[in-house]
Amino acid sequence: MRKSRGGKELESRYVFRGKRVSVKVTTFALPSGKVTIREIVEHRGAVAILPILKENKIVMLKQYRPAIGRWIYEIPAGTLEPGENPRECAERELEEETGYKAGKILKLFEMYLAPGYSTEKLHSFVAFDLNPGTYHPDLGEEIEVIEVSLEKAIQMIDLNEVMDAKTIATILYFVNSNRFKWREKLK
Amino acid sequence: MRKSRGGKELESRYVFRGKRVSVKVTTFALPSGKVTIREIVEHRGAVAILPILKENKIVMLKQYRPAIGRWIYEIPAGTLEPGENPRECAERELEEETGYKAGKILKLFEMYLAPGYSTEKLHSFVAFDLNPGTYHPDLGEEIEVIEVSLEKAIQMIDLNEVMDAKTIATILYFVNSNRFKWREKLK
Repeated sequence: MRKSRGGKELESRYVFRGKRVSVKVTTFALPSGKVTIREIVEHRGAVAILPILKENKIVMLKQYRPAIGRWIYEIPAGTLEPGENPRECAERELEEETGYKAGKILKLFEMYLAPGYSTEKLHSFVAFDLNPGTYHPDLGEEIEVIEVSLEKAIQMIDLNEVMDAKTIATILYFVNSNRFKWREKLK
Repeated sequence: MRKSRGGKELESRYVFRGKRVSVKVTTFALPSGKVTIREIVEHRGAVAILPILKENKIVMLKQYRPAIGRWIYEIPAGTLEPGENPRECAERELEEETGYKAGKILKLFEMYLAPGYSTEKLHSFVAFDLNPGTYHPDLGEEIEVIEVSLEKAIQMIDLNEVMDAKTIATILYFVNSNRFKWREKLK
């Protein structure tokens, strides 16, 4: 039953402590006992929300991302504040980024974005019963809210026009989920 | 047409240069002209490969990941060597991690894993016509090769037993793709 065994952090040295990420160089004892040194990016975790409007439309953002130097389609998302509950973060980010308040938010799944070097866990949600909130998002000029049909979003993924991991995983998870049977509804 | 406009890196200071990742603090002029400071994790990019065996079975790995301190199901994957072609990297990693050599490797899509702070782009492939290669993988004790049906893998995703972003996105992309019509074959 070696798979159930864990490893152990032996020693860590922080080489960077930032606002968004920190980096440590860690000496780690693997479950086998073998010792390895790893560069680990620490991140507080994040949420993503798939907002479902009436008539199978969804809300996406077209957003400029400095890290990759380009515009990219994403679903609403954001980083957890320290100690923040993922569901509350999802409600907050949805309203901040789209102006919509959700009547119902359901958890879809959790995933690690880059488990080879990052601690980041993303909590993925789907939001229904959307109504304009009291908050008017200050979008600036680096983010644009768009509404597309779920069919169109799936097609955009297939054509690789959507290139964001959380967006691809969340939309395809939702349409494939046995819980929502959405694929049957789309037929 | 402001969406087609780009931003501009004004100044960067490296705060960490590692083997796997480097981190820079960058002053960036957004497309709107607004100036912002960002922590950016630089990564060379990676590949992931979905190996399709006979009778709709696929190869997955159960792997211990120090960054998240746990075992996780993943498809074979690896980091690009400097200057390495993604397809060659995919062939190499597939054989190194599973012992299989692919007769046919097709590109599926590209995606950014964490575009909010990481430059990492992942190139996703599907591999067919698999035969045992000449290379015998040295798996150590931190990685186990498993074979499961595609149906079972989809169910494991739905139950959130698969928690790795590239694995969720690649498997669901493949079964939903109009190019492969796999969903119809699974019926």
